[in-house]
Amino acid sequence: MEGHLTDGVVEVGANGRERYYDSRGYGRPRGDGVRLSRVEAAHLLFRGDLDAVDGEGFSAFLADNAEIVVPFLVYKDLRDRGFYVSPAREGWIDEPAGVDFVVHPRGDGPWDGTVEHRIRVLGERAPVELDSLGDVVLAIVDEESEITYLQTTRPDISGSSSHTLSGPVEGTLLDDRVLCWNPPAELYEHGFYGQRLDRDDEAIQLSLVEAVYLADRGTLRVDGDTDAIRSRGRAAEGDRFDRRFAVYRTLRERGVVPKTGFKFGADFRTYADVEHVEELSHSELLVRVLSADAVCSPRDLALDVRLAHGVRKRMVFALVAAAQIQWVSISRLTP
Amino acid sequence: MEGHLTDGVVEVGANGRERYYDSRGYGRPRGDGVRLSRVEAAHLLFRGDLDAVDGEGFSAFLADNAEIVVPFLVYKDLRDRGFYVSPAREGWIDEPAGVDFVVHPRGDGPWDGTVEHRIRVLGERAPVELDSLGDVVLAIVDEESEITYLQTTRPDISGSSSHTLSGPVEGTLLDDRVLCWNPPAELYEHGFYGQRLDRDDEAIQLSLVEAVYLADRGTLRVDGDTDAIRSRGRAAEGDRFDRRFAVYRTLRERGVVPKTGFKFGADFRTYADVEHVEELSHSELLVRVLSADAVCSPRDLALDVRLAHGVRKRMVFALVAAAQIQWVSISRLTP
Repeated sequence: MEGHLTDGVVEVGANGRERYYDSRGYGRPRGDGVRLSRVEAAHLLFRGDLDAVDGEGFSAFLADNAEIVVPFLVYKDLRDRGFYVSPAREGWIDEPAGVDFVVHPRGDGPWDGTVEHRIRVLGERAPVELDSLGDVVLAIVDEESEITYLQTTRPDISGSSSHTLSGPVEGTLLDDRVLCWNPPAELYEHGFYGQRLDRDDEAIQLSLVEAVYLADRGTLRVDGDTDAIRSRGRAAEGDRFDRRFAVYRTLRERGVVPKTGFKFGADFRTYADVEHVEELSHSELLVRVLSADAVCSPRDLALDVRLAHGVRKRMVFALVAAAQIQWVSISRLTP
Repeated sequence: MEGHLTDGVVEVGANGRERYYDSRGYGRPRGDGVRLSRVEAAHLLFRGDLDAVDGEGFSAFLADNAEIVVPFLVYKDLRDRGFYVSPAREGWIDEPAGVDFVVHPRGDGPWDGTVEHRIRVLGERAPVELDSLGDVVLAIVDEESEITYLQTTRPDISGSSSHTLSGPVEGTLLDDRVLCWNPPAELYEHGFYGQRLDRDDEAIQLSLVEAVYLADRGTLRVDGDTDAIRSRGRAAEGDRFDRRFAVYRTLRERGVVPKTGFKFGADFRTYADVEHVEELSHSELLVRVLSADAVCSPRDLALDVRLAHGVRKRMVFALVAAAQIQWVSISRLTP
């Protein structure tokens, strides 16, 4: 059979509906015929199940529609995995904005109205606006046409860590950290604030975000109070310090203890249930703090997600705008 | 005993030499006395082995010399690990430029003139000029005062992959890749160029760097020749395309096959000994391509190195300036 490209859709008449839609889930029916997206038409041409579109075979059709090459690769991969896939066109699926395809649950087809994944296709060089994520799967096609699927969600972040400290503790602001020479043991042992200067010594070093948090609550006293610590932080990191502090405070308020994520290239790693530092469980999240309008390259996302997976943690992006934090979790997916 | 700070060095008289240098490797002798760096003096104060410097104990001395806090943490850590450590001062060690300490081999002291590691101390927020690396160990102190040691070397990159292809193969430039519909099997199977479009199909997709390399050598022919492919690459990536191509070509010329490193957040992963794609060994290197004047944050380095370690590969930075490429390898070190 042959199709005709009209207004970005390939129309196939006669018994196209039965042949392509009813039996194999391509396109949407129109009378006895079927309307196919260009990607679907390319897939049928590639498989030899459609003879031509306006006289063109697969390679000529692709050459004339080069912008569908990347989506075609994803569509083909999902079909090869045994899924029915619907193009995200207005009227074809619900809420098509921001996605390219929906994948139907295994065994279901476009006639069932069910959705397993909402897929957004990206080349590896396309910028990603992080605040657009949360209910889509990114299908990233790298320069060698391998596909990486990243699932994005909006997680609830909470834990049960809470320990009320008496205070105030005296501290000294030294370069970009605060030293407490004689703190109560609970500061480190139960609150999990700071780091011992030495195994055999009670002195504790606090990071600047920890110190601002404690000073804000009246648990820590240093010369110049919170302002002195905060301005040291801003001198070292600029606005990033305020963003990181906003995330630190929010995590603490939700019962989650943030500690540095430096060794994992992240801002924080987190512990949801701290009672005593000698009974710490594995840290659960890696948190990267960014401003809400941050744009990432797919490669940077792939790096973060791969690393988090390798150390059995969940990668979470904290997107900060003024008083509000959005949490976006990203993980690998094998459809 | 008591020391006196003069011109940035703490002088201890009387039998300071015997007590601090001869028996425990601190400072450099001067007559019967000893000259200590401020970091060494702080360490002796911390241990209670020196009573005061100009009347100050450990905490007061540190507060007056806040810029030595970070180096002090590294010095202490190395001492705790059982090494003698010499401050990198002119006349105290050879070639002190660019480093803060040298670590002597286990069992050796400053009197032996031997060096195990040359250590450069950095806070986690300090920028790192990559082309300054190669014969130093970075000791990076994070905001919670944990220390990460990164060994840097200048590796020789070479392999035994070589396969002469006949040609030319016809290709079509489609978006940001090249499709070859009927290439000889050796292109993919022995040369390890491109990726099959489908397991059961002979068509091969080439990345733009692969395509420029092959077109340059007359092995690939596309409409518009090399220039058309190269300008597509530049449109997608700007100067970065030229840097990546320079590295791709150099690796190929040295018998190493580069493939995309996207899944690892790198530019390339490499195979040193490709004979047939069905007998591929584990890829050995992850290569990140940067311009020679690139400056990285320690956290980005930590992320790359941690990931490479997790997937049992070596992290290599390819620093490109015009016709020249410097290779810098970075790996984790436990001193």
